[in-house]
Amino acid sequence: MAIELKELTSSEENYSQWYNDLVVKADLAENSAVRGCMVIKPYGYAIWEKMQAQLDKMFKETGHSNAYFPLFIPKSYLSREADHVEGFAKECAVVTHYRLKNSPDGKGVTVDPAAKLEEELIVRPTSETIIWSTYKNWIQSYRDLPILVNQWANVVRWEMRTRLFLRTAEFLWQEGHTAHATREEAMEEATKMLNVYADFAERYMALPVVKGIKSANERFAGALETFCIEAMMQDGKALQAGTSHFLGQNFAKAFDVQFVNKDNKLEYVWATSWGVSTRLMGALIMAHSDNNGLVLPPRLAPIQVVIVPIYKNAEQLAAVADRIRPVVDRLRSLGVSVKFDDSDNKKPGWKFAEYELKGVPVRLALGGRDLGNGTVEVFRRDKLEKQTMPLEGIEQYIVSLLDEIQDNIYKKAFDFRASVTRNVDSYDEFRSEIEKGGFLAAHWDGTTETEERIKAETKATIRCIPLDRKAEKGVCMVTGRPSEGRVLFARSY
Amino acid sequence: MAIELKELTSSEENYSQWYNDLVVKADLAENSAVRGCMVIKPYGYAIWEKMQAQLDKMFKETGHSNAYFPLFIPKSYLSREADHVEGFAKECAVVTHYRLKNSPDGKGVTVDPAAKLEEELIVRPTSETIIWSTYKNWIQSYRDLPILVNQWANVVRWEMRTRLFLRTAEFLWQEGHTAHATREEAMEEATKMLNVYADFAERYMALPVVKGIKSANERFAGALETFCIEAMMQDGKALQAGTSHFLGQNFAKAFDVQFVNKDNKLEYVWATSWGVSTRLMGALIMAHSDNNGLVLPPRLAPIQVVIVPIYKNAEQLAAVADRIRPVVDRLRSLGVSVKFDDSDNKKPGWKFAEYELKGVPVRLALGGRDLGNGTVEVFRRDKLEKQTMPLEGIEQYIVSLLDEIQDNIYKKAFDFRASVTRNVDSYDEFRSEIEKGGFLAAHWDGTTETEERIKAETKATIRCIPLDRKAEKGVCMVTGRPSEGRVLFARSY
Repeated sequence: MAIELKELTSSEENYSQWYNDLVVKADLAENSAVRGCMVIKPYGYAIWEKMQAQLDKMFKETGHSNAYFPLFIPKSYLSREADHVEGFAKECAVVTHYRLKNSPDGKGVTVDPAAKLEEELIVRPTSETIIWSTYKNWIQSYRDLPILVNQWANVVRWEMRTRLFLRTAEFLWQEGHTAHATREEAMEEATKMLNVYADFAERYMALPVVKGIKSANERFAGALETFCIEAMMQDGKALQAGTSHFLGQNFAKAFDVQFVNKDNKLEYVWATSWGVSTRLMGALIMAHSDNNGLVLPPRLAPIQVVIVPIYKNAEQLAAVADRIRPVVDRLRSLGVSVKFDDSDNKKPGWKFAEYELKGVPVRLALGGRDLGNGTVEVFRRDKLEKQTMPLEGIEQYIVSLLDEIQDNIYKKAFDFRASVTRNVDSYDEFRSEIEKGGFLAAHWDGTTETEERIKAETKATIRCIPLDRKAEKGVCMVTGRPSEGRVLFARSY
Repeated sequence: MAIELKELTSSEENYSQWYNDLVVKADLAENSAVRGCMVIKPYGYAIWEKMQAQLDKMFKETGHSNAYFPLFIPKSYLSREADHVEGFAKECAVVTHYRLKNSPDGKGVTVDPAAKLEEELIVRPTSETIIWSTYKNWIQSYRDLPILVNQWANVVRWEMRTRLFLRTAEFLWQEGHTAHATREEAMEEATKMLNVYADFAERYMALPVVKGIKSANERFAGALETFCIEAMMQDGKALQAGTSHFLGQNFAKAFDVQFVNKDNKLEYVWATSWGVSTRLMGALIMAHSDNNGLVLPPRLAPIQVVIVPIYKNAEQLAAVADRIRPVVDRLRSLGVSVKFDDSDNKKPGWKFAEYELKGVPVRLALGGRDLGNGTVEVFRRDKLEKQTMPLEGIEQYIVSLLDEIQDNIYKKAFDFRASVTRNVDSYDEFRSEIEKGGFLAAHWDGTTETEERIKAETKATIRCIPLDRKAEKGVCMVTGRPSEGRVLFARSY
């Protein structure tokens, strides 16, 4: 059976097809037999595990513990918080029965009508309601606060148009749910976790993000304030990469969660929630990859270095393997994940293309001539550049090269974002500039009405009000009403 | 508000109530608002995370990768494998609709009848069917084999009688699903993973287990052979702690998964699946704990050492804290997890009881007199023994004490099991002995009929045919028919 090179559609030809090709051909994920649900394949899951491990570490360093709450939410719980139900109840999987029975025709099984639930259960689209119904029992006094809990879980939102990682009916995520004695402490928590997300995105995903606040219109259903990190993809569209919500006392009131404060008075508890999901995989792929395949930042690459031997016969392979074994050992002892691919049913050229497709940051190739010369060919995925280097001392070079690649990928994404971010001052300019993609910083009058008109006419939304925006008096580009500073617009995923 | 000591029902008085009290009062888990679904609280989840981390490491060391498959299974998939549907389709959560809408009366939400699914979706009770429908696309040639995949996930089985950790409608588990080119290789995988489970149970949970084969009657629905590890609880009941299934070609045939072998012939793929779940938490608790609370083996304890300062005023606390800080640092650098509990709203006696309840293996107490004498009080949870030791060099002592505690807990469980395991040779003796609990090794004629009669008359089941049983000719204690060796009976969870 011939082994064929896997070709990608070029991103210039069809960005959307390029993305899908890449996800499937690099063995990250694929669609399943269940509408809108994906299968995350081992290579894709290995990247997600690296994200999880780092985020989990950062959550624990900031004082959080993990816990687990039920998959199912009683239908009535969703309606307890008025805004929340508007936002989430519309698209969800509903469990109505708890038993199947053999079909009367003897073929297959059918739902047993006798096993109908008294109250339907909703597969969690997010867990505020079930968690706050639980916190009611955990919180009596200020001494029980704060509660700093996170959950790693699957959630289901019945999306009509799905795309691998970016928008799927079921996805994996973490959701932090914290309870506090004061407004200030809850607000501090919400911004702290926003900073954790931004730090993770920039230092691990090599993804520069804008930290900001959502407009009222784009706020999480049930929140008083939604903070977000927004990233720019290579096609000029923005992607919301994480959100952190200040929920005020909304859920405490909906589930009657009060505590006795230090002055011995009953008060409602203050809340936050915050989450990132497998959507980050989509952001990672779209921010850095190219027409040869994935480009992975070394800190999230399951394989950081692949070594491909070049040989004509078993004897040469053995010689290469002998020479490279101590290098592999030393790299591993330095914490580098290394794969030595000596599989004999694929040619080196096929392997080169495959590991480029999979985004392995560094490739070493070593053949008979290198053995004689004491050299090795070093290829870096981000720049697609190779050079011949002395094998002696290569381990330290690789460790610093991995750092350099991490920095370079970040810088490239940072420079790209800078190149597509600009101020616009008139709505005419906005309408023509938005066609080119990127972030447009413009004055807006702060009303939902204007925001919705802009969205309807240009498909652009307010991605956020940047936390670090400069105070700058101006006038709304649409209505001419006064504005205190620019907000960021873009078309988005 | 007075802080009260949490009292447990004694295990002698009511074992079942003791267990439930312990789970709830040690903050491990609690029942949720959703029937049969539990909330795993941070302290309980921290133990589960330790189990997960170790198991995951062992799975990876044996060549497995993690992946993720959909939560939902199309109803028709369950019926593809005839035995499987009989075993699993009866008790499951069925999703029939994908949307809610506002109730006509304006109160709450109601299921939108227009949003009925064409085919109902089942919340996975186990994932063989959805996974083998996926493997069909992954496997063409012998070069694609083996596939060694594991998934960490939640599953739902609609149990009517539930108990925290032991039997819940939703539970967390891992399920390995592997695909092989030959029967021998699949069988080798199934026994390899059984050994991994036994190794984990014995070395980390300090839980001796019997490795064995299930009788046909107790086999997993769809398996040709089910291997299991069986543990003995302190009330004399057995608990199945993990299973590993040789599935033959059943699922490959059900989902038409064939591969081209080395001789260029089409063949069905061979399969295994294997899993352990949060049920292990129940086993851990019931195997070792006592009337003072949890007894945790150090290797799974979230807090291995707690340090409680004894002081009269802030000055004394500061002196104790200064003295103990370098000890904490050194213990941590030795890989020991330490908590220094200087909270000032609880008395030392309350703290002592609380950490005993939570099963912290070692407690250090340090007061003013100790500062003068250069001593520390060391308490070990497993034996409830304390002694005064020199503080100097205490770190190395603690490291070896943790090992000793781990070994002692195992030995205690091992000795207990030995004391309740015995041969019985007549059915009369069996019927009277089974009332005392424990494992009964007896001759059985190998028929399901006899097995079911014994179960109906004594509530005992065949836990397993031990892998290491001696060949011993005998006669079935019930029918007098010939038998080749003893099998293990017990009442069980």
